[in-house]
Amino acid sequence: MKKKLAVVALGGNALSRGDQAGTIDEQEQNTTETLENLVFLIREGYDLVITHGNGPQVGNILMRNDAGEQVYNIAQMPIDICVADSQGGIGYMIERMFRNVLNKHKIEKNVVCIVTCVLVDTNDPAFNDPQKRIGKIYTREQADELASRKGWIFREEVKNIGGYRRVVPSPVPKDIMNQSIIRDLAVKGNIVIAAGGGGIPVYIDENYDVRPAEAVIDKDLASSLLASLISADEFYILTDVPYIYINYRKPDQQIREFLNYDDALKYLNEGQFAKGSMEPKIKACLNFIERGGRMSVITEAFKLADRKYGSKITMEYEDERR
Amino acid sequence: MKKKLAVVALGGNALSRGDQAGTIDEQEQNTTETLENLVFLIREGYDLVITHGNGPQVGNILMRNDAGEQVYNIAQMPIDICVADSQGGIGYMIERMFRNVLNKHKIEKNVVCIVTCVLVDTNDPAFNDPQKRIGKIYTREQADELASRKGWIFREEVKNIGGYRRVVPSPVPKDIMNQSIIRDLAVKGNIVIAAGGGGIPVYIDENYDVRPAEAVIDKDLASSLLASLISADEFYILTDVPYIYINYRKPDQQIREFLNYDDALKYLNEGQFAKGSMEPKIKACLNFIERGGRMSVITEAFKLADRKYGSKITMEYEDERR
Repeated sequence: MKKKLAVVALGGNALSRGDQAGTIDEQEQNTTETLENLVFLIREGYDLVITHGNGPQVGNILMRNDAGEQVYNIAQMPIDICVADSQGGIGYMIERMFRNVLNKHKIEKNVVCIVTCVLVDTNDPAFNDPQKRIGKIYTREQADELASRKGWIFREEVKNIGGYRRVVPSPVPKDIMNQSIIRDLAVKGNIVIAAGGGGIPVYIDENYDVRPAEAVIDKDLASSLLASLISADEFYILTDVPYIYINYRKPDQQIREFLNYDDALKYLNEGQFAKGSMEPKIKACLNFIERGGRMSVITEAFKLADRKYGSKITMEYEDERR
Repeated sequence: MKKKLAVVALGGNALSRGDQAGTIDEQEQNTTETLENLVFLIREGYDLVITHGNGPQVGNILMRNDAGEQVYNIAQMPIDICVADSQGGIGYMIERMFRNVLNKHKIEKNVVCIVTCVLVDTNDPAFNDPQKRIGKIYTREQADELASRKGWIFREEVKNIGGYRRVVPSPVPKDIMNQSIIRDLAVKGNIVIAAGGGGIPVYIDENYDVRPAEAVIDKDLASSLLASLISADEFYILTDVPYIYINYRKPDQQIREFLNYDDALKYLNEGQFAKGSMEPKIKACLNFIERGGRMSVITEAFKLADRKYGSKITMEYEDERR
């Protein structure tokens, strides 16, 4: 059995579901159910690197920072530290749950989590056009006060939500620190958790010092870059839909189970995929193929192990089940 | 030059000083000044594993959890997740500051942080006698309410502080996960940050599952155990005093620069060292020597590089400067 290396990006409801309160018990249960779906990849001989989103968790960390300043006058931490905090907490949770899933299935494998910085370019146009909404919803007065005191930038929420939210840049990931350690540990058989939440956003300044970027990095783009940098064979994005669709939620909605690069790119250019949702996932999948990866897969977190689900993008059509 | 492996435990004011507000700028400045003191060890050819305390940081994380529940009704996270969060945030901060210190000194070395679980024994007597004070100070009424709602245990603070604080067990660390990865990465020349805050406290249950312990582990004892498990040659504790003293803060106070194991143990048994402060540090140093380590050193964080400071404990007297 030839060993293959896969990067699996856990996102959306894989860890924390929108209809839940976000307690640790709920998160651990969701995580366990998701990881159960990865057992078949291990049984097929895959080495695994696990990446993950941190939206609900880092959102709560940011809100707690705000509340801690209000109630106890505790100094707030910047975004890079909040993302790093979330990598520790979520990474540990995934590590512990994965150890227990492996124990249940009598699989002897080790699990390790690497705190991961991801490099961005300060010339990225995103720094002049912050779009990513983070933290709590403020009133106009609160937003104005924070804008003048902290220099934060706010955008109005859409009509049926109302209020204002802080926006930060979401630059493209350019490089990933400790990538060779991540690869080495994975190909030695460790399950490696890395680049959580898109990675801790940093840049290299003119003196070659590492500086924090007030930004968040898309976790699918960072995961795809990591997959390429460590020469993974396959890249999986686990989300809340079982397939890639065209004409999504329209009367003529269609499943696309097998896509080649050109077709997926054509659908992307047609605007078939929702911005900030499916679009960056498709881009991440295409980036992986462009850089030489064999196959990108998008499917629902809880259905990965069921081969009848999931859309597969390859350079040329490969319309056969493995 | 024979390579040596050292574990250096950063604690107390090495990262965050009691007389400061705890902003990230202050923490980064303190960390940089501390890490500058480690450059000479690198120049002498040491491989390094860095451990660290998390008292002020995890205290703030716990307070923010409390405030977040009060203000926004966000689910509070248990201690294990809060410690894991602090490992991510502090570990990343140390990694970034160390990269910049190395850059300044034109030293090419990599830095990597491993999220680390530390195993405790549920039969540890500490679980029946929780002593470690964590989180905020509550009034009697608040403490009673939390005790009945969450099962937390409280102790009255000493007179000049007043109020009640939650206490949790501080069991002895028994084993450390991913120790061989930590060692391998260090002896390959990476500076490894691990076992932050004494490690994320976990235990193995009767089904061999990994479970979280509602506890905190002493960072010096965990660091000493890690030093032994990875066969480190030397173990350093950086704290807020430059020496080990006997008759500390009495008229006949004396510095002890070179101690052998028997003398240090005698002073310990005489009660020369303050409980919860210098006592666990001396125990950690003695444990390292008992388990075969060559030398334990206690000194002030900002004076490590100055060889005229620091107390050295060895099995037999070694009263010569290296």
